[in-house]
Amino acid sequence: MKTIQQTKLGLLGGGQLGRMFIQNALNWDVQISVLDADANAPCAACCRDFRQGDLLDFDAVYEFGKTCDVLTIEIERVNTKALRQLETEGVRVYPQPHIIELIQDKYTQKQFFRQHGFATTDFEFVANKAALSAHLESFPLVQKLCRDGYDGRGVQILRSADDLHKAFDAPSIVEDLADIDQEIAVMVARNPKGEVRTFPPVAAVFHPEANLVEFLIAPAQVSKDISEQAEHLARQIIEKLGMVGILGVEFFLTKSGELLVNEIAPRTHNSGHTSIEANRSSQFEQHLRAVLDLPLGDTAIVSPAAMINLLGEEGHTGAVFYQNLDTVMQNSGVYLHLYGKRETRPFRKMGHITILRDNIEELQSLAQYVKNTVKVISNNNL
Amino acid sequence: MKTIQQTKLGLLGGGQLGRMFIQNALNWDVQISVLDADANAPCAACCRDFRQGDLLDFDAVYEFGKTCDVLTIEIERVNTKALRQLETEGVRVYPQPHIIELIQDKYTQKQFFRQHGFATTDFEFVANKAALSAHLESFPLVQKLCRDGYDGRGVQILRSADDLHKAFDAPSIVEDLADIDQEIAVMVARNPKGEVRTFPPVAAVFHPEANLVEFLIAPAQVSKDISEQAEHLARQIIEKLGMVGILGVEFFLTKSGELLVNEIAPRTHNSGHTSIEANRSSQFEQHLRAVLDLPLGDTAIVSPAAMINLLGEEGHTGAVFYQNLDTVMQNSGVYLHLYGKRETRPFRKMGHITILRDNIEELQSLAQYVKNTVKVISNNNL
Repeated sequence: MKTIQQTKLGLLGGGQLGRMFIQNALNWDVQISVLDADANAPCAACCRDFRQGDLLDFDAVYEFGKTCDVLTIEIERVNTKALRQLETEGVRVYPQPHIIELIQDKYTQKQFFRQHGFATTDFEFVANKAALSAHLESFPLVQKLCRDGYDGRGVQILRSADDLHKAFDAPSIVEDLADIDQEIAVMVARNPKGEVRTFPPVAAVFHPEANLVEFLIAPAQVSKDISEQAEHLARQIIEKLGMVGILGVEFFLTKSGELLVNEIAPRTHNSGHTSIEANRSSQFEQHLRAVLDLPLGDTAIVSPAAMINLLGEEGHTGAVFYQNLDTVMQNSGVYLHLYGKRETRPFRKMGHITILRDNIEELQSLAQYVKNTVKVISNNNL
Repeated sequence: MKTIQQTKLGLLGGGQLGRMFIQNALNWDVQISVLDADANAPCAACCRDFRQGDLLDFDAVYEFGKTCDVLTIEIERVNTKALRQLETEGVRVYPQPHIIELIQDKYTQKQFFRQHGFATTDFEFVANKAALSAHLESFPLVQKLCRDGYDGRGVQILRSADDLHKAFDAPSIVEDLADIDQEIAVMVARNPKGEVRTFPPVAAVFHPEANLVEFLIAPAQVSKDISEQAEHLARQIIEKLGMVGILGVEFFLTKSGELLVNEIAPRTHNSGHTSIEANRSSQFEQHLRAVLDLPLGDTAIVSPAAMINLLGEEGHTGAVFYQNLDTVMQNSGVYLHLYGKRETRPFRKMGHITILRDNIEELQSLAQYVKNTVKVISNNNL
């Protein structure tokens, strides 16, 4: 039996989620190897064994995985055939390949919710744009590409038949437009022994006019009952999946007070970032504990927190410059996380800032201030 | 003017202090290069630009430093002639070379305390063992080698003339044996603009019988008056030095209630480790802020904490094995830090564990339990 320090842990994907995972794994001296197509991916700066290769290529994933005892992911777009093969050969692949496959496709994901009685918006499969005309009476609706949507790409609202021209012409699902009061998310982890722990829910706070997410707030400002329901559902989902690792579960809380499962992601997640500073254990530590079959960590919140994504400004492409960082860093309880990406482009996730404050109103106003002050721009446009 | 992300920061020394510094610097995407003689030093695992070279060699340090905008240290044993040369050529060297030199020699360090009126135990210089016989009437006393003492090496108590045979035969200082009630330490940082911030004092807790340090506790359990005095003295020392960076200041609190400065270290320090989890900003973040001329961070304590050094057990040399880690990790608020050293040997610093608890008695008893449970042994002896 290998010790934690002797276990070779492979990570598919070298982005920011992997980078924060490695920062944490350094504390336990876990040997991590990373595979990513981009030689300058965020993980390359902090990983001794960084290998370049295409995550969708069978051979690249298989050859990489053969050198590992445990294999995990920080992105779902990976070659699961290779993962299935590695699993049969004794590599511990967490999350398990069949679960990654189920979640990679939004249609099979939604079918899973339906089959197991998890409330979700009503949905149907459409094979292409032409097939959408059968749904004219259901407008407005949400169209989501079955595969490869990411960071809001591959999702759009079709309000009326006039929007048909912009519809995706690919296998997708159409969903009812939920009457959303809040969007909340729960991170949940499970280890091979079957131990399960949830993190308290976090919520997206929207700009009152622009209807854009301003920041995340933890804990979500919802009733104890809703909070417990959300944690309970997250636990049921990971148990029903039998998944090992951490899972992000996104919910709509409707205006009538119903919790609908929106989407799940079988990995560390943007919604869990406040856990780095605001919880006893972070989502990254929890995932590490889960895949190494260690006792799971305490997820209790130590301080209310807000999290702001640092996205590239529109109109800026090129070498990145972070405006006014030193200004916001004068405030206590402001924690910067830059992902080490050299180039910015519009809406690219370049980093995040977590803010801790005991008082929720102070927290919200400081978050608003930080959000308005820091800008991710390009040097070229200075 | 280069941005934080464009600044090339060089670090002399690749040990655990450097490793934790880099873990922190990753959050701000600071580009760090490391120089160390050992290709497997703890920093090698998390640093893209790790270079091998002797820190005491002029050319190695000079050539490394020439490629940096800012140069700092994680160990005092470095070639300061090279640093002085680099400083004249415009590299920002923090701490400044003349301060490293002053502190490298325990005699000049003590003279600094005396000259500026900082209370310290009485001391005299002795050139060699023979010169010690002039001090027979002062026994018992402490002999400290002027140079290159480290982790308790180079320091010994001479209780009577019978101990003369074991005295160091090299330039050293002899000090009065203080009547110590507690040993406390303050971390203090200063940036180039002259802003200074102190961390609340931490204290060493000794085993009641064995007279060995069991763990550190933060905050030190001393009166508000003593705590303020210690922070005030630390501030005065760094200001008198005009130093940039973080400085560890160790004090003896005597049984008569007097605070005596014992030693100072111009770098991050073992005494500051609880700040990673227990303070708003860690000592590593604070040092980074200081050397990059950023506003200093909030040092407030968020939770009482204890810190246990994981030292190699006596009788164990070879490939390291950490016994019972998974047992203690079942407890909430137990944070493991392993330094990534492959081989253990007696008393080698292999890692540390920080424990957070609101209640001081609970904290002490959990610290005691963790201390007694985790053992750093060698696989060979299993």
